[in-house]
Order: sequence, then C-alpha cells, then structure tokens
Amino acid sequence: MFKKFKEILIGKPLKSSADDSHLLNKMQALAMLSSDALSSVAYGPEQIILVLMTIGATAIWYSIPIAAVILLLLFALIMSYTQVIHAYPSGGGAYLVSTENLGTIPGLISGGSLLVDYMLTVAVSTASGADAITSAIPELYNYNLEIAIVLALILMFMNLRGLRESASFLMIPVYTFIISTFILLGVGIFRILSGSLPYQAPAHIGTSIAGVSLILILKAFSTGSSSLTGVEAISNAVPFFKRPKEHNAALTLVMMGSILAFFFAGVVFFAYWMGIVPQNNVTVIAQMAKGLLGSGPLGQLMFFIFQFSTALILAVAANTGYSAFPVLAFNMAKNKYMPHMFTARGDRLSYSNGIISLAAGAIVLLLIFKGETERLIPLYAIGVFTPFTLAQVGMVIHWKKRLGKQFIWHSIPNILGALISFAVVMILLIFRTAEIWPFFIVLPVLIFAFIRVHHHYVNVAEQLRLREGHAEHKFDGNTVIVLVGNVTNVDLGAINYARSIGEYVIALHVSTKENTRKEQEIESEFEAAFPDLHLTVIRTNYRDIIAPAVRYISLASKNAKKRNYTTTVIIPNFIPSKPWENMFHNQTGLRLRVALNSHEDIILASYNYHLKK
Amino acid sequence: MFKKFKEILIGKPLKSSADDSHLLNKMQALAMLSSDALSSVAYGPEQIILVLMTIGATAIWYSIPIAAVILLLLFALIMSYTQVIHAYPSGGGAYLVSTENLGTIPGLISGGSLLVDYMLTVAVSTASGADAITSAIPELYNYNLEIAIVLALILMFMNLRGLRESASFLMIPVYTFIISTFILLGVGIFRILSGSLPYQAPAHIGTSIAGVSLILILKAFSTGSSSLTGVEAISNAVPFFKRPKEHNAALTLVMMGSILAFFFAGVVFFAYWMGIVPQNNVTVIAQMAKGLLGSGPLGQLMFFIFQFSTALILAVAANTGYSAFPVLAFNMAKNKYMPHMFTARGDRLSYSNGIISLAAGAIVLLLIFKGETERLIPLYAIGVFTPFTLAQVGMVIHWKKRLGKQFIWHSIPNILGALISFAVVMILLIFRTAEIWPFFIVLPVLIFAFIRVHHHYVNVAEQLRLREGHAEHKFDGNTVIVLVGNVTNVDLGAINYARSIGEYVIALHVSTKENTRKEQEIESEFEAAFPDLHLTVIRTNYRDIIAPAVRYISLASKNAKKRNYTTTVIIPNFIPSKPWENMFHNQTGLRLRVALNSHEDIILASYNYHLKK
Repeated sequence: MFKKFKEILIGKPLKSSADDSHLLNKMQALAMLSSDALSSVAYGPEQIILVLMTIGATAIWYSIPIAAVILLLLFALIMSYTQVIHAYPSGGGAYLVSTENLGTIPGLISGGSLLVDYMLTVAVSTASGADAITSAIPELYNYNLEIAIVLALILMFMNLRGLRESASFLMIPVYTFIISTFILLGVGIFRILSGSLPYQAPAHIGTSIAGVSLILILKAFSTGSSSLTGVEAISNAVPFFKRPKEHNAALTLVMMGSILAFFFAGVVFFAYWMGIVPQNNVTVIAQMAKGLLGSGPLGQLMFFIFQFSTALILAVAANTGYSAFPVLAFNMAKNKYMPHMFTARGDRLSYSNGIISLAAGAIVLLLIFKGETERLIPLYAIGVFTPFTLAQVGMVIHWKKRLGKQFIWHSIPNILGALISFAVVMILLIFRTAEIWPFFIVLPVLIFAFIRVHHHYVNVAEQLRLREGHAEHKFDGNTVIVLVGNVTNVDLGAINYARSIGEYVIALHVSTKENTRKEQEIESEFEAAFPDLHLTVIRTNYRDIIAPAVRYISLASKNAKKRNYTTTVIIPNFIPSKPWENMFHNQTGLRLRVALNSHEDIILASYNYHLKK
Repeated sequence: MFKKFKEILIGKPLKSSADDSHLLNKMQALAMLSSDALSSVAYGPEQIILVLMTIGATAIWYSIPIAAVILLLLFALIMSYTQVIHAYPSGGGAYLVSTENLGTIPGLISGGSLLVDYMLTVAVSTASGADAITSAIPELYNYNLEIAIVLALILMFMNLRGLRESASFLMIPVYTFIISTFILLGVGIFRILSGSLPYQAPAHIGTSIAGVSLILILKAFSTGSSSLTGVEAISNAVPFFKRPKEHNAALTLVMMGSILAFFFAGVVFFAYWMGIVPQNNVTVIAQMAKGLLGSGPLGQLMFFIFQFSTALILAVAANTGYSAFPVLAFNMAKNKYMPHMFTARGDRLSYSNGIISLAAGAIVLLLIFKGETERLIPLYAIGVFTPFTLAQVGMVIHWKKRLGKQFIWHSIPNILGALISFAVVMILLIFRTAEIWPFFIVLPVLIFAFIRVHHHYVNVAEQLRLREGHAEHKFDGNTVIVLVGNVTNVDLGAINYARSIGEYVIALHVSTKENTRKEQEIESEFEAAFPDLHLTVIRTNYRDIIAPAVRYISLASKNAKKRNYTTTVIIPNFIPSKPWENMFHNQTGLRLRVALNSHEDIILASYNYHLKK
C-alpha cells in the first residue's frame, strides 16, 4: 500500500539506463537554470530601496548608481563563469573549482556555503513567491508562511519524480515570466516616450541628500547584489546539456546574463521614475506593474498574469536549489565528505535523500525566519558570495597552472569578479553582522562534520581492506545454541535446523524462577519431544532473561573457540500471519539480538516459523 | 546511561523473590485503598450542589435528602463488598465476579469499564487535586491542567518504584487528611453548638421551590453518587493484606465506609448550613473550610494544611488507579484478553506496562477534557456503576449456586446494591446522554479488541502446539548463500563461517550495472581472494538490490529443499566502534532481513565484523 501511494506521488521506478535521454536543450536549460537569477529581480531591487528608505524616499535615486555597479559585477561574473564552463566541462561549480585549485578546506568552505545557500534559495524564493501571490490577492496576506511551505513541498515531490519531466513542465512559467516582463518594461518605455507616464521621483539623480553615508550605500549594494544569486547555476550543470555541451552552456549563460541585466536595470529605473516606496503588503515590483499597466480591465488582467508568472518563476527558482543541492551533495559524498546515502539514487533516478534534506532544511529556515524575505536575504548573499570569491580565486590559480606567465590576461574577469565578490563579503561581514552571524556558526560546524565524516569513511575502509597474504581459516565444527521458551513447533523446526548445521547442539532455557512448576513442565515436555537432546536450564533471580542468556552464550563461545569451532545462536521466532499481530508477542528475540550484536565471533541466526492463519 | 537514569527514577532492579514482604497491614491498607473513596468528598458534594444551582441557591436544601439516599447506597455497597471479600479472598473485583457468575461478555464489560474508569480515577483525582491547590493559591489558577498532568506523572514514577514503598509513603497524607477533616467538622459542630456559626441557608429544608423537578433531583443524585467511587478497591486487593487476609480486609472496608459516611454527611450539611454557593476558582469544600476556620492566623494556617492534605489525598486517590489498573490488566492478560506484555513485571516488580498505559490514558483524558472535573464526573460515574451493577448481580448468582433456595437472605445487600447501582446507570443513561456518550463508543471498541486479542492468542497457541507423533526431520546438508558487496575482511570472515556450517556455499553479488568497471573489479578481487569459490553475479536494471537478491535466494532455497538441504543466508555486516556511526552506512542488510522474513525455510544469519576504532 505504501508502495502504491509512493508511485502515485512520485511515479513508477525507472531503470538506471533511462538516464541518458534526460539531457537538456538550450531552451529547456534556460528554463531550468536561469530562473534563480532572473527571479531575483522580484526581490533584489526592493532590497536596495528598503535600505535607502531608512534615510527617506529622497535617497532612492542612489539606487541608480548602485544598480550600475551591480551590473558591472554581473558582467564580470558572467565572463568568469563562461571560463569555468570551458575549464570544467564535467560540471564545475565552486566546490570542485575551489577544491582542485585551492585545496580541501577552501573546497569544503565553498561546498558548505553552497549547501546552506541552496536551502536559502528555496526559502527565499518560496517566501518571495508567496509575497507575489499575496500582493495580487490581499485576502491571503496572513498565509504567506504556509504558502511558502506548501510551495517547497510541491517542488520536493516534483523533483522526486525526476529531472526531465520537471524541465519541460517548468518551461511554461519561466517563458511566461520572461515574455510578460518584456511586455511590462516595453509598456513602460512606450509610456515614457509617449509622455503618458508622469515623472514622480521624490528627488532627481545627483541631488545631495543629508544623512546618506558610504556605509548606507555599501549596505544597499551588498543586499542588492542578492539579485545576482544563481548566475553560477549553469556552470554546475554542463553535463546535463546536449552536445556540444560547453558551447551550449556558454551561450545559455550569456543569454541569461543579458536578460537579467535588462530586467534588473528596468525594474530599478521604473521604481525610481515612478517614485515607488516599499509597502508592507505589496511588493515594489507589484506596485510598478500596477502603475504601468493601469486599472483598466486589460491592465488588471495583465497585472494578474504578471504576478502569477512572478510567483511561478520564483517557484522555479526554488527548483534550482532542488537540482543543484543533490548534485553537490552527491559530489561531496563521493569524496567521502558527506554520508554515503547522498550517492543513492531513488526509484526515479533522482538523488532522493538530497532532495528531501533540502526541503527539510528550507522549511526549517522558513519557520525560523517566519518567511520574511528581508531577514533571509543577508544570509543568502553571504552564502552566495563566499563560494563566488573562492571559485574566482580558484580560477586564477587554474590559469596560472595551465598558462604560466600568460595567465594574467585570461584571469582579468576572474580577478575582477573575485575582488567585487570579496568586497560584497567584507561589506556584509562588517555592516550586517547582526543578520549574518548564524552563517559563521553553521559553516564551521558543517566543515567539522565533513572532516569527521571523511575521517570515518577512510578509517573504516582501511580496517575492512583485505591484507596481502590474508588466509582463509578452516574451522573444525560448529556449536549451535538454540534458545527454548515453551516447547512448540517453532523449537522443533529450529532444533532440526541446528542439527543440520552444527556438530554440537545446546538447547538453552532461561527460567525466571517465578514459577517452578512451569519450569518442570517445560523440562519434561522437552524430554518427551527430544529424548536424545539435553535441555540446559539456567535460572535467574530477576525477570530479565537477556543478561543471563548472554553470559551463558559468551562462555559457550569461548569454549567453542578453544576447539576451533564457530558459535551460532538460533533464536526461534514465529511470524504471525498479520504483521500487526507482532505487537501481541514479546520482543525478547529482538532484544537478545541487540545484546549479542556487541559480542564478537557469535553468529546470530533467526529461525522463522510462519503461522498460517 | 539510560540504565543509570532509569535507576535514579525508579530504583535498582529487585529480585523476583523480594515480593512476599510487600504485604499491607490494616493501617497501610486504609492509606493505600481508601483514599479514592474518602477523597471523593472533595468533589462529590460540590457536584450535587452544582446541579441544583441550575435552579438557584434556594434549591440547595435538596442536597440533604439526596445525600441521605447516597448514604443508603453506600451502606448497601459496603455490605455487599464485605460479602465479596469473603467469597473471593484471592481478590474479587467486578471483573472476576462478573466473569465467573455471569459469563465472558459481562466480565469483559466489567473489565473494560473498570480499565477506563481507573484512567478516569486518575484524571478526576489529579484534576481535583489541582483545584484544591489553586483554591489555596489563586496565583496558580491558570495552571490547573499542567499541575494535574505533573501529578499523574509523579504517581507513575512512584508506582514504577514498587508497591510497598508507596504504601508507607502514602500513609502520611491520608492520615493528615482524615485527622484534619475530623478537626474541621469538629470545629463546625462546636461552633454550631456554641452558636457562633450563623445559619445562612438560602432556604429551609422542605421549602417548596419552583422549577425543581424529579429529573433535576435524579441528575443531582447520579452525579453525587460519584462520591462512592472507590469503595470496591479493598475487595480487589485482599491478597495484599496480612493474614488473616479476609478478616483484615472486611474490617478495613467497614472502617472506611464509616469515615466516608461521616465526612460526606458533614460536608453536605455544612455547605447547606453556611449557604455556600459554588464559585469558579474556589471549591465548595475550600469555602467551607475557610468559613469554619475563620481568617485569624491559626485559622489560615489550618486552612492551608487542610487544602494541601486534600490535594495530597486526591493524589493518593489517583494512586488507587495505579495499584488497581495494572492488576486488572494482568488478570485480563492472563486470561488472554489483553496483550501478553501486561503480565510482565519490571525491574521493581511492578507491572510497568500497565502503570505506563494508565498514566498515558489519564493524561489523554485530562487533555481532552481540559482538566475540568465536572465534565469528567458523569463519565466516571457510569464507568463505576456499570461494573458495580454487574458485580452485585454476579454475587446474587454466586449465592444461588452455593446456597440454593436459601440464597435470598444472603443476597439482600447485593440485590439492594444492584438495584440502586442500576438505577444510577439508568439515570445517567437517560438524563446525561450528552456527557456520557463517549463511554458507549469506547466500551464496545474495547470489548471487540479483547475478543480479537483472545482469538489471536488461542489461535497462535493452537498452531504452535507440538502434535502427537511429530517427528524430528534429518536434513542431508546445508546450502549457504553469502551476500558479497565489496571484497573485504567482513566477507572473508563470513565465508570462513559459511564453510564451517555449509556443504554448499554460494557467494552472491548483485550488480546495479551503473558501473561495469566496478563490477569487473569486484569479480577479479574476489577471484584473487577466494580462488576456489565461484562468485555468482546477478545484474539488475534498477538501483534496488533487495528484490533481485530475494528472487535468487528463493530459487536457491527451492533447489536446496529438493535435495533435502536447509538454506542459510549470511549477511556480512560490520559494526562500527561507535554506535552513532551506523548512520553513515547503508541499511541494506536490515532491509534484506525484513524482505526475507516473509520467506519460509530460509534462515537468516548475521555475520558481524567488529571494527576496532
């Protein structure tokens, strides 16, 4: 029944070989991999304005020069990641690039940051998606958190179904968003040109505003740079592209960069032009859309379409986390830095454990931060720009190794990217400590855990390896101990089996002395049933039979070893015809198994007698 | 560590033989067994007044004649249970008396009612205890429910420690309550006689009050009869008395009945005389105590002592449930109507499972009814008077069987008790349906469950019994299948063992075809390590290795059977040096065990290789 239910939720199991056809063309790849970056325009510009608003609406014009710097950073990152694609066609990603060029610890820092970051991707995107929905439907305003959690769960199930289905399914919302944003910005440009969109900025560009400090500008810049999260996604996913993989991936990356630049610039500009001020219940981008599209019936319809495509692309953005996290976890698990279970693929070929862990992490984050985007953004930014910086530095080293002295020319985009990314990290570190401190607790804990896990696996592999010149050992026989409770068919079967494998069979009964008559009864029944086998009875003053049984068995095992015999303990067990009936019977067998598991050289065997009704 | 913690909570394990010295003398027995009945005066009279108050304070004088009828019922019950003590010296109780004289189903009705009822005893007593505490300390008023739950848990741990310790421990609060109530009522009588207690009854006895109907009187009577809950406790516990058991038990019962009658009559009378009207935050008995003792410093001290001794005796009353429930569950489990686990005694010789189940049930009831006594009382009353009625009818049958025609004289108290108890049941059934309906859902479900459990045990015993002329079977050999993953020390050990027990050893490897190179590597490693053993490789298109392994194993088992061989499957397993490290390794072994458990004639053995570090 569980199996059926699982099939309905995530689909029928797929063969391992079914994997090859799951490759993405450019259109699908853009849908799958650019949503994280593109959807950032739904919250990135708003974050800039929110910081500036602490001075007042007149300070908003600063968003224009700040946006220009962010666009420069975007350009450097796109150039830089184009190089990563060519340098690491098997799927680069900050973890791999950092590990290979900078060493284990920087690699683990990148990996750990990204794992946390993908959880934040899911949390931020689903929370913003919920905001987009409630901006259009004010009645839902109090259910933001619940909507975000449901979105995260829906995405989890979709991803458990497998990658390709998701890709084709996701193309619709992404392209709806791209097209409708183009239309929206087009309408805006047309209205400005035709003079029908009044200029309402609270202050002109260049006006000097009292209270604006460099710190404020840097704060606004660092949070606004959260619009650039997700540009690395394509470079991690090169193996999923159709051939020629690298070429297609690079083209997709440039395409995505151009669209993002246009959207980001457009939103910041119109927010400034229209004098939009952040509100509690309605996002900046929703206010902008409402203003540009007007309140006519067509305008209203288009506004709803825009809001829902925004919500949908945010959901797809969350999905980027779902495709990236499990792959990263797989890579780290393959290098023995994460538990082995992250390498296992589920019925639908997806890395189920990674997907489920991600969803759980994101939901925990949503609950801790009550689904409030602005509290999640600083953490998100530090989580992104830390591995960005490390990956760019890694690329510089990479070029130096490969090209020698000539490396400097190839490295320019990387050096630029590294510097700006590092600047963002430092700004966050210095000016937003109050928001990002949890990152500096979680990350060291993660890295410590990675190292411990690695140590464990290496240690186990070492101990398990067959040594040169290991020898098979020939035993002379087998001592078999059968535990007897009452004398039943189960014991009959178990003793028959014991005699088939053992040279020396011991039937063992533990009496709790509470009922001497009962003990004598069992002894005489046993003698009648098995006249040629002696029943060894041990007595205990307590009710627990486990401890005395274990004591006797270890003694017997020691004796067996002296004679070069192996020791087998048989626990006779009956299996009720209905599984739930097990609860009516005591679990002594199970407890004995647990107790004996810690004893070396004792083999535990269960003899199961199946009841028919 | 768990063991240490458990020892601190419930004490060191006791030997089974330590049981005999746990017998009770009369003083201890009165403490242990009368608290339920005596403590009822803390809520019983209030319940009568609460019902009458629906008409108005003037109706309160009716509590006097109602109390008279309840005292008559008490007298009949005490007489009747004295007879039960002599007829069933091994511990009567409604379950036993009903089963023996009326048959299985009436017995199960009694047993089921009482099991529920003991949970209600705990719930009502702890809730009333919490009320007594908050009547004295108004600051705690909002924590009634929490206080009640904590009381139930404290009692649970005390009972897990064992019976005797509880008895001596409980004597102090019970006797403090008895003495302080005597003092309280004595003060009241003295003040009336000395004329210093003004008569403030809202209406004289006999005043005709508009709106008082027979229905109201019957309702008040039926809830007031909850004061009689617990009078059966002594008759269930005869075996725990010191010799002469029956004599001592009967004496204790009469003693208890007299004290209860005096206390109940006193509280009803003073509540009437002083014109006490129920309040939300202060119990009737607390108002009475406050009024009688006055507001001087000595009076206030005495008031506090009285309230806390009330709270304590209510806690002890809850304890009656803890001593009765496990014994009843044990008796029903011995008759195979409840799961076997209720017959098992814990480290401290108490029936741990019964004690824990009772606490859990009581806490669930407290949570459902939010700890409100007046909502629990009607259920409590129906749960008590149903088995009362059945037990009394059973006694009539008992006398008829033993004495023939003469039975009528012996039966008079039983017939009287049966009739009044039955009247209470009918009144509750007709006039308090809205409150008691859950009882008529829970009881049939319980009885159905008892019958199913019984059927299951009888059925299993039947199937397990060795038939006359059963024969031992001699096998010709043993096929051993060893599951091989990677080729490691674990496999070496497992194969050595397999060869010691098996005539025919199969090494089986399931390949998931995801990595052909890996498969070839394993094959050649295996050949190098075990040149004289062939590695059977089966391939699967899916990632799950369980299903193909099980298919192969069942086939091998069929072949083995044809040759009169047994089949053993060995699952090589390594045990990490630290238990938590298990989570880093996949649980294929465990899953295979579960899958193979349903296959007959396959013996599962675990070969454990212990890692040293």
